[in-house]
Amino acid sequence: MTEYTAMSQSELMDAFVAVKQDYARLVAQGLQLDMSRGKPGPDQMDLSRDIFELVSTPMGFKNKDGIDCRNYGGLDGLTELKNLFSQILGVSAQQIIVGGNSSLNMMFDTISQAMTHGFGSEPWMKQGEISFICPVPGYDRHFAITEYFGIHMIPVSNTPEGPDMDVIEELVKDEKVKGMWCVPKYSNPEGITYSDNVVRRIARLKPAAKDFRVMWDNAYAIHDLYDDDGDALLNLYDECVKAGNPDLAIMFTSTSKITFPGAGVAAEAASPNNVEMLKGRMKFQTIGPDKLNQLRHARMFRTLADVKAHMRKHAAILRPKFAAVQMCLEKELTGLGIAEWNEPKGGYFISLNVMNGCAKRVEELCAGAGLILTKVGATYPYELDENDSNIRIAPSYPSVEEVAGASRVLCTAVKYAALEKLLEQNGENAKY
Amino acid sequence: MTEYTAMSQSELMDAFVAVKQDYARLVAQGLQLDMSRGKPGPDQMDLSRDIFELVSTPMGFKNKDGIDCRNYGGLDGLTELKNLFSQILGVSAQQIIVGGNSSLNMMFDTISQAMTHGFGSEPWMKQGEISFICPVPGYDRHFAITEYFGIHMIPVSNTPEGPDMDVIEELVKDEKVKGMWCVPKYSNPEGITYSDNVVRRIARLKPAAKDFRVMWDNAYAIHDLYDDDGDALLNLYDECVKAGNPDLAIMFTSTSKITFPGAGVAAEAASPNNVEMLKGRMKFQTIGPDKLNQLRHARMFRTLADVKAHMRKHAAILRPKFAAVQMCLEKELTGLGIAEWNEPKGGYFISLNVMNGCAKRVEELCAGAGLILTKVGATYPYELDENDSNIRIAPSYPSVEEVAGASRVLCTAVKYAALEKLLEQNGENAKY
Repeated sequence: MTEYTAMSQSELMDAFVAVKQDYARLVAQGLQLDMSRGKPGPDQMDLSRDIFELVSTPMGFKNKDGIDCRNYGGLDGLTELKNLFSQILGVSAQQIIVGGNSSLNMMFDTISQAMTHGFGSEPWMKQGEISFICPVPGYDRHFAITEYFGIHMIPVSNTPEGPDMDVIEELVKDEKVKGMWCVPKYSNPEGITYSDNVVRRIARLKPAAKDFRVMWDNAYAIHDLYDDDGDALLNLYDECVKAGNPDLAIMFTSTSKITFPGAGVAAEAASPNNVEMLKGRMKFQTIGPDKLNQLRHARMFRTLADVKAHMRKHAAILRPKFAAVQMCLEKELTGLGIAEWNEPKGGYFISLNVMNGCAKRVEELCAGAGLILTKVGATYPYELDENDSNIRIAPSYPSVEEVAGASRVLCTAVKYAALEKLLEQNGENAKY
Repeated sequence: MTEYTAMSQSELMDAFVAVKQDYARLVAQGLQLDMSRGKPGPDQMDLSRDIFELVSTPMGFKNKDGIDCRNYGGLDGLTELKNLFSQILGVSAQQIIVGGNSSLNMMFDTISQAMTHGFGSEPWMKQGEISFICPVPGYDRHFAITEYFGIHMIPVSNTPEGPDMDVIEELVKDEKVKGMWCVPKYSNPEGITYSDNVVRRIARLKPAAKDFRVMWDNAYAIHDLYDDDGDALLNLYDECVKAGNPDLAIMFTSTSKITFPGAGVAAEAASPNNVEMLKGRMKFQTIGPDKLNQLRHARMFRTLADVKAHMRKHAAILRPKFAAVQMCLEKELTGLGIAEWNEPKGGYFISLNVMNGCAKRVEELCAGAGLILTKVGATYPYELDENDSNIRIAPSYPSVEEVAGASRVLCTAVKYAALEKLLEQNGENAKY
């Protein structure tokens, strides 16, 4: 396989003609495929079909503490789920707040609280222009929350071990820098798991701002693709305590990709100080979360082992979809020198970096052939991917056959855009 | 029956000795009763026992629009529930946002949004000291939200027709006055329903602040106690439109007291402008509400008539409890000139005004005999009932027998506190 960049102009032309024919054939198929969002498929949701039997009149509505889960109360959730999430997040059960159906909502509310009331400080809204560190590429909805609140975003590149800590250690010396977003395990979109060294360096940060918080979105904490070959993430909270920084981080997770995306249970965890501060807002905001849905989950997953067994079923459904993408990328793009991609061991995404200046064109070509991708740029603050290079692939929702078809479209578009770009560059160069 | 205030000192002494004996007997019973919160009882929650069968694998998870309610999406809720709430609140379905399990949460988030982003204005946090109108007595959790955000509260007395509009029409001339709380039907705690005249005067308000909003908490919209004798509330939104004030009000309701307090469905309604503004925040806050719980409700209540039939069953359970309180108040307190109370036709509360300066003492005496009342003062901003007079009675949760027992304790305490007060006053006067 000759790298495109090593090809002569006529070789490029020949290749382009062939790829255009491939593309035309794909367009003619009239496909309708969507790999834009990390949505579990119906087969994954069917894995939790039994959960509905677990809360009913015959089963009763009381949890093990004797609380009637139908009624008001229980601000921070059921004991059973605190225990479960405490094992998933690696903190004590007293440090867990169990919420509603959305960890994103808990993150938004936490930032909103800082805006109006600070974190043991002046409200962020009264501190002038403030900033947040945003490892890139990252999760678009984190960046959207930050932008909504008018917090300036500072992109920091990820390395294969996690965000570039040399840069971050410098940035936090500015007291206007108030926090950072992290998806520390099977990160969205790159599938990176932060190395022990990166986790320790985060825990040891000494930000100038006392109200600096790490927003630790551990969305994929137990979302391995392979049964005995998952990434291990160091316990951030333990490291924070060791570093004398217990209040540094606020952690989040949910069962959105364990039971149901729209009807799971979310949790937030932090130091006792932080938990007290968070509950100090929540007690004004609500009388309590939906404890019946919490009870359903508590009865479905009595131990962490139950959850892990359940996650193996998810993995069995997801593996062939991830494999279909990987196979196609390898077969179609290896050796062309126009794309790089990762092979995550968990999570929901494959991150593909195409030739600089080509990502938007790839998105456009895919759309022309009926394939919707995550909006290019969405993985960057202000939707600004300076290199126009990163594409997030979300293979979970379509069937394996659809994923394979979508991957062919994608690879063809990547080649198409690269050849078009190289021909154009050569043409420009030829003018001079 | 002689009024206490018309009694001689020795008559008061005799009465006090008798009441103290009654009180001692009640204390000796070692009761444990709670009439502090408007919580539906287990028998009421059992009325919705069939709801759990309505979402399950055999029943399927799609609503009538074909949406798989298990997955992500649907920011503003299911069409079926928009239609249902549109009938309950008297606005078009497009004006409804269906949320999670708590209308209080929707209210908090709405105020929070105004603090950080304004209502088409500068953020409230950037407008210096601002105020809210708080009809009193009112709902403690409204006042708590206002206080949490540091918004100054201006109490305005309720008349039997609703809040004193003469005062309010003056107050809104100040552009620092940003809104008012209303529980317009079967108000908490007085059970008042706003008259047509009051609703029209609210709709016609011309506040100096363009970002003034009426927070219209219609929590008891269809919560009548008597089948054919409910209060009628004029449609505020229609009146606002007629007055050229469509954006003035934001309305709230929920099924907390229709299905389950902890696991119902809440809704927010407003003008198209307001709805767009609210969704403009929500799209950053969440991917969507728990649609499975919405689907349960949609399948349980296919029409408004279904809901109304269900509410009649609630009324049948609640009526004897309200009657037990009323009977006891009439029997024990009529003619003594030391207390006034209302006889609401719906809602969850009876409001009792005792002799000025006696409410806290009544609360204390009740606690001494094992009866927990709503904290005295809670029905006022800053928990400050200047007259120390208002007591909120919430008879829904205990059994009829318990309510009767609790009412005896309450009436004895009311007499005890009044006699003690009068004797003390006479003693003081005797010094001069």
